[in-house]
Amino acid sequence: VTEVEAPATLADLGESGLLRTVFARLARSTPACSRVALGPGDDAAYVRSPGGVLVTTDAMVRGRDWRDAWSSASDVGAKLVAQNLADVSAMGGVGTSLLVSLVAPPSTTVQWLEHLVDGIAEGAARAEVTVAGGDLSSSHGEVSVTVTALGELPAGVHAPVLRSGACPGDVVAVSGELGRSAAGLEVLRRSDSGWYPVPEHASACAQWVGYHCRPDPDHTQGPVAARAGATSLIDISDGLVRDAGRVAAASRVQMRLWSSALSAFVEPVARVLGAESAKQSVWHGGEEHVLLGTFSPESVPPGWTELGQVSAADQRTEQPGQVWLDDALAPAGGWDHFER
Amino acid sequence: VTEVEAPATLADLGESGLLRTVFARLARSTPACSRVALGPGDDAAYVRSPGGVLVTTDAMVRGRDWRDAWSSASDVGAKLVAQNLADVSAMGGVGTSLLVSLVAPPSTTVQWLEHLVDGIAEGAARAEVTVAGGDLSSSHGEVSVTVTALGELPAGVHAPVLRSGACPGDVVAVSGELGRSAAGLEVLRRSDSGWYPVPEHASACAQWVGYHCRPDPDHTQGPVAARAGATSLIDISDGLVRDAGRVAAASRVQMRLWSSALSAFVEPVARVLGAESAKQSVWHGGEEHVLLGTFSPESVPPGWTELGQVSAADQRTEQPGQVWLDDALAPAGGWDHFER
Repeated sequence: VTEVEAPATLADLGESGLLRTVFARLARSTPACSRVALGPGDDAAYVRSPGGVLVTTDAMVRGRDWRDAWSSASDVGAKLVAQNLADVSAMGGVGTSLLVSLVAPPSTTVQWLEHLVDGIAEGAARAEVTVAGGDLSSSHGEVSVTVTALGELPAGVHAPVLRSGACPGDVVAVSGELGRSAAGLEVLRRSDSGWYPVPEHASACAQWVGYHCRPDPDHTQGPVAARAGATSLIDISDGLVRDAGRVAAASRVQMRLWSSALSAFVEPVARVLGAESAKQSVWHGGEEHVLLGTFSPESVPPGWTELGQVSAADQRTEQPGQVWLDDALAPAGGWDHFER
Repeated sequence: VTEVEAPATLADLGESGLLRTVFARLARSTPACSRVALGPGDDAAYVRSPGGVLVTTDAMVRGRDWRDAWSSASDVGAKLVAQNLADVSAMGGVGTSLLVSLVAPPSTTVQWLEHLVDGIAEGAARAEVTVAGGDLSSSHGEVSVTVTALGELPAGVHAPVLRSGACPGDVVAVSGELGRSAAGLEVLRRSDSGWYPVPEHASACAQWVGYHCRPDPDHTQGPVAARAGATSLIDISDGLVRDAGRVAAASRVQMRLWSSALSAFVEPVARVLGAESAKQSVWHGGEEHVLLGTFSPESVPPGWTELGQVSAADQRTEQPGQVWLDDALAPAGGWDHFER
């Protein structure tokens, strides 16, 4: 008779045992020149700061923001760190430290927690930030993880880049590819119905799925954009059209995007998933975490893709905050946590 | 026929409608000289900071950390702010700003969210801190709220006060009353079984319940203790014995508490709830959020109550980190989120 040992749960270790496990895994990845003067284990952490602090928070909920069938605990941890650091980058800043708050039932396996911490530690190490502290709370069954990121303005960046500074005549540009995360999600959804890509598309599909589950946006592009004089900057987390609309509304301007510029992103996805899915992915796909910026025409940073132009709102006929695709209003879409 | 209108839910407003509601309620309570240069609405907030930043996070889960039958949404918001600011105070610091992350199902009523925000705003205004940002995520049904507090060291405090500095010969002292929160919880529990206090105890019971649901610890006592030269400082959130043990372990000393000193807190509770409940409340009651500090004998701040003394660990017979009550090891107890 083989006795199958049940995996250890959070209830088996208790809070202090869990904290020992977590701290040990985090200690391995703390960068050498950490700004965190005092990390986990006291009432609060203490982060050295020369002038100001950027701070942002973002949560992920199991079954809504990720599915265990598609994402490992390590993926979840790494993705949440990437999301938070993308928000710091979208201010022109660089991350310094993270706080992590886990709400999970006592029946959660210790292994799941360990993998979550490993993913957080890996994401943190990649960006040279330190996990400064956190909190563990028990739930009735649902699992949610909240990360708070602290950051600062690097040398050469003297003020955060806001959403409200876009000016008529500015160029709209994006720091990386669009549509990858949504294309990856679409591949996962179709796979659940037995779909699989033809062999020559398998590698693209795997890359999109990889980016969806564990995005690795280039966090250095925020400071690059700030130093180039970006007039506005936002991280694309809820879809291009929705996030461009946020910049347009905050800046009281119109954003005019060119479908010809977007076609470079649409076409490779269309070849694999069809034209409609590709358009949806590029226009409305969330969790891209590349940056959308506005710049005077001569100062778009190298490697960024120009997507369109900022124009003034016609006071008589147009609402400020509108996003146009060529000659028509862009269709509404994108991610809303609560909308029916 | 009267038509009963169903209360509006988060799903009715959608994310941007919710954010407008939240920001409007927060704007009313922002202090005049806020350190938050840029608040909610962009990718990250920006907090002015002269040197270093204290940062801490704490979550509350419905049905585990509060019951809707006992605590209003406003109570929950105010309590979570008080808990986080107590952690900042326990470093010798003062709060500057807060981030709030709410995970709740779309069926949550807008009114509940409004009351939560009002409680957070009230707690923040009382401590003259600003809500700098936050996040809204949808769940399948459970509700959890995570607050992150940022703080700084005030004038005259040059380093955070850690848990690890207690020295043999120091006096152990507490900044306020012990047992109130746990006594309030016990009153609520007994009330559910039909118990009610005799008239002359009703006012004490109401005060304990009030402190349990909406604690208002004096956040200025952390800086007071730091300026007085506290060698260690912790906020009592998981019970006196458990938290004293954390200081003892971090400082590699023994804590020796006197039951004669604790009796001032035990007796008023014992008269209403009996001796056993009173001892449990004072020794092991969590969520007190008064501060436990160690001081050289001549420097205990005015208004603090001396509870005992720090002594060296006898290397041969004693583990460091032990807590004694008179001549015996204090019984284990206190709050653990995950222990069975």
